[in-house]
Amino acid sequence: MNPIQFPAFLKPGDRVGVLAPASIVKYEDVVPGIRLFTEQWGLEVIEGETLKTSFNQFSATDDDRLADMQQMLDDPSIKAIIAARGGYGCSRIVDRLNFEKFLQYPKWIVGFSDLTAFLAKTFKTGYASIHAPMAKTITNVGAETAAESLRQMLFGEMPAYEVPAHPLNRSGHATAQVVGGNLCLLAHMIGSETETETDGKILFIEDINEYLYNHDRMMIQLKRSGKLDKLAGLVVGQFTDMKDNNSPTFGKDSYEIIAEHVTEFGYPVCYGFPVGHVSDNRAMGIGMEAELIVTEHAVQLRFLPNSNAKSEEI
Amino acid sequence: MNPIQFPAFLKPGDRVGVLAPASIVKYEDVVPGIRLFTEQWGLEVIEGETLKTSFNQFSATDDDRLADMQQMLDDPSIKAIIAARGGYGCSRIVDRLNFEKFLQYPKWIVGFSDLTAFLAKTFKTGYASIHAPMAKTITNVGAETAAESLRQMLFGEMPAYEVPAHPLNRSGHATAQVVGGNLCLLAHMIGSETETETDGKILFIEDINEYLYNHDRMMIQLKRSGKLDKLAGLVVGQFTDMKDNNSPTFGKDSYEIIAEHVTEFGYPVCYGFPVGHVSDNRAMGIGMEAELIVTEHAVQLRFLPNSNAKSEEI
Repeated sequence: MNPIQFPAFLKPGDRVGVLAPASIVKYEDVVPGIRLFTEQWGLEVIEGETLKTSFNQFSATDDDRLADMQQMLDDPSIKAIIAARGGYGCSRIVDRLNFEKFLQYPKWIVGFSDLTAFLAKTFKTGYASIHAPMAKTITNVGAETAAESLRQMLFGEMPAYEVPAHPLNRSGHATAQVVGGNLCLLAHMIGSETETETDGKILFIEDINEYLYNHDRMMIQLKRSGKLDKLAGLVVGQFTDMKDNNSPTFGKDSYEIIAEHVTEFGYPVCYGFPVGHVSDNRAMGIGMEAELIVTEHAVQLRFLPNSNAKSEEI
Repeated sequence: MNPIQFPAFLKPGDRVGVLAPASIVKYEDVVPGIRLFTEQWGLEVIEGETLKTSFNQFSATDDDRLADMQQMLDDPSIKAIIAARGGYGCSRIVDRLNFEKFLQYPKWIVGFSDLTAFLAKTFKTGYASIHAPMAKTITNVGAETAAESLRQMLFGEMPAYEVPAHPLNRSGHATAQVVGGNLCLLAHMIGSETETETDGKILFIEDINEYLYNHDRMMIQLKRSGKLDKLAGLVVGQFTDMKDNNSPTFGKDSYEIIAEHVTEFGYPVCYGFPVGHVSDNRAMGIGMEAELIVTEHAVQLRFLPNSNAKSEEI
C-alpha cells in the first residue's frame, strides 16, 4: 500500500471552505448545505467567491476558480474544502494547484463527479480525501444516510456500509486502499499526472448520463491501460440516466457491460453500491484502507483507521 | 522519424476487401462504393461477411468481426482492406488482431472515425495506412475530390492539397510523419498499446457530434498526457455537428477551444482542413511523411514518397 496520511479530523467550531471549482452554481442551491454544516455539524463555513460568480458554463474563469481553490488550500485555518457541485472544469486547472502549503497544513477535500480530478491529485500528494455529496446535493431528499457518512468520516468515525447482494456480484474478500470516482474522469486522466494507480486496490466507479457504447468504451480504456487487471476488488456504484441508441440498441446495460470486462479476473466485484449521482451517495475515502466482503447474501465495506496514524504523530 | 514501410501500391485487377469491423451497415449503402472500386478503379472486391450481418448495434459479434478482419489481414491475395463504415467497435477487438501474416503480406488498411484504432495499430506494426472515406461515404455528393485522393494514394500517386487560410491559423513549415485521426479515439487510446506517439509529428484531428465541453476535455487529455507539446505541426480538420448546452453555453467553438490549448506552442497550426465527417474527407497517410506549409494566404499539405522505399526493395 502506498503510504498515505490523513489530514486532522474535524471538531466542532472548525472552519471549512465551500466553493464551486467547476460549473456554475446557483447560490441558493448551496444555502441548505451550508446550513447543515454550520447549524447541525457545528462548523464555521468560509464561502468561496465562486459561489456567486459565473463565466459561461463555469463558476468563474480558470484563473479565478484556481485562485479561489488555492486560497482555501493555502489557508491554515481551513480544515476541509467541500465543493458546491461538479459539472466540468476541474481538469482545466488541476495541474496548476499548488499543494506546498497543503503539505504544511493538510485538510480534507470533499466532492465527487468532476471533483474526481482534485481527489486524484490529493491522493498523488500522499493524502486521503473524501468522495462524497457536495454542498448542493447533501440536503437532497434521501441523502440523510450519505450526509451522516460524510460527517462520520470528517469527524474521524470510520463508516461501515452493508448493502444487499446483487445477482452479478462475485464473492470474495479484500483489504486494500480505496481509489476511484467518476468513470469518465478516471478514463480522462489516463496518461496524465493524476492517472489513478489501481494495482492491488479496491476501485470504485460511478457515472451519469452517458451512452452505453461510451460506457463500454471507457471500460475498455481502463482495461487496455491495465487498470482492471490487478485490482483487489471492484465496487460498482450507480450508473444513472444512462442512454442507449433507439435502434439497434447496445444490447447490454451498464452492469452487464462492466461484468463482461471483468469476467476473466478473480477479485470480488459488487454492483449497485450506494455511491454516485444519487441521493444515497455514501462517503468513500480515497486512499483510505477498507475491508470489502462480498458474499452471496450481502456486501460489507468497512473503512479502517489509518495505519500510518502513529508515525504521523511522531 | 520512426522507420515506416509502405505496403505495395495497387494496380488495376488487384483484390481489395470491404468489411464492416465496427457498427452495423446496410448492405445497400455500400453497393455504390463497391461499384466505384470495381467499375472505376478496376479492382476486384472481396466482400466480408460483416457487410450483411448484425449483432445489436454491431455488424457482428466481436469474434465474428475479428474473424472477418483477420481473414482479410491473412489473405495474401488481398492488397487493401477498406472499411464500410465506423461507428463503434474497433477498440473492442483491436488488441486481438494478429499482424503476423500482414508482416509477410502487407496491405493497405483504409478508414476513419472508429477505424482510427486499426490505423494506429497498423502504425505500431511499422506500416503506413490511410485515413480516408469508407465504402459507405466515398460516393456521397461532394466526395469526388476525396475519393480521387484515396485512389491516388492507393495507386502510389502521393496527393498534395492546397486549402484556404483560416483566421486562427499559425504560419510555419514542417516536414514530418503524419499521425492522427478521430480525436475521441486518440484520447480513448491513451494508456493503451495503440496510443499515438506525437512527438515531432504532424498531428491531425477531427470529430463529430460531441458536446463542446467534452471536446475541451479531450484536448485536455491530449495536452495533459504530453501529446500536444512537441508537435511538428497540427492540422485541424472538421468538427461536425458539435453540441452545446442551451444555457449557459460553453463560450467557445471547437476551433477556439483547440486554439486555446496550443497557444503556448510555436508549431504551425491550420484549421478547417478537409478531413473528417464530411464529404470532402481527403486521404491522409498515417505514418507517411508530408510537408506542411501554413502561410497567411493558404495551407499546403503534400505527402512525400517513402524515403524507406529503397531499403524495402533490398
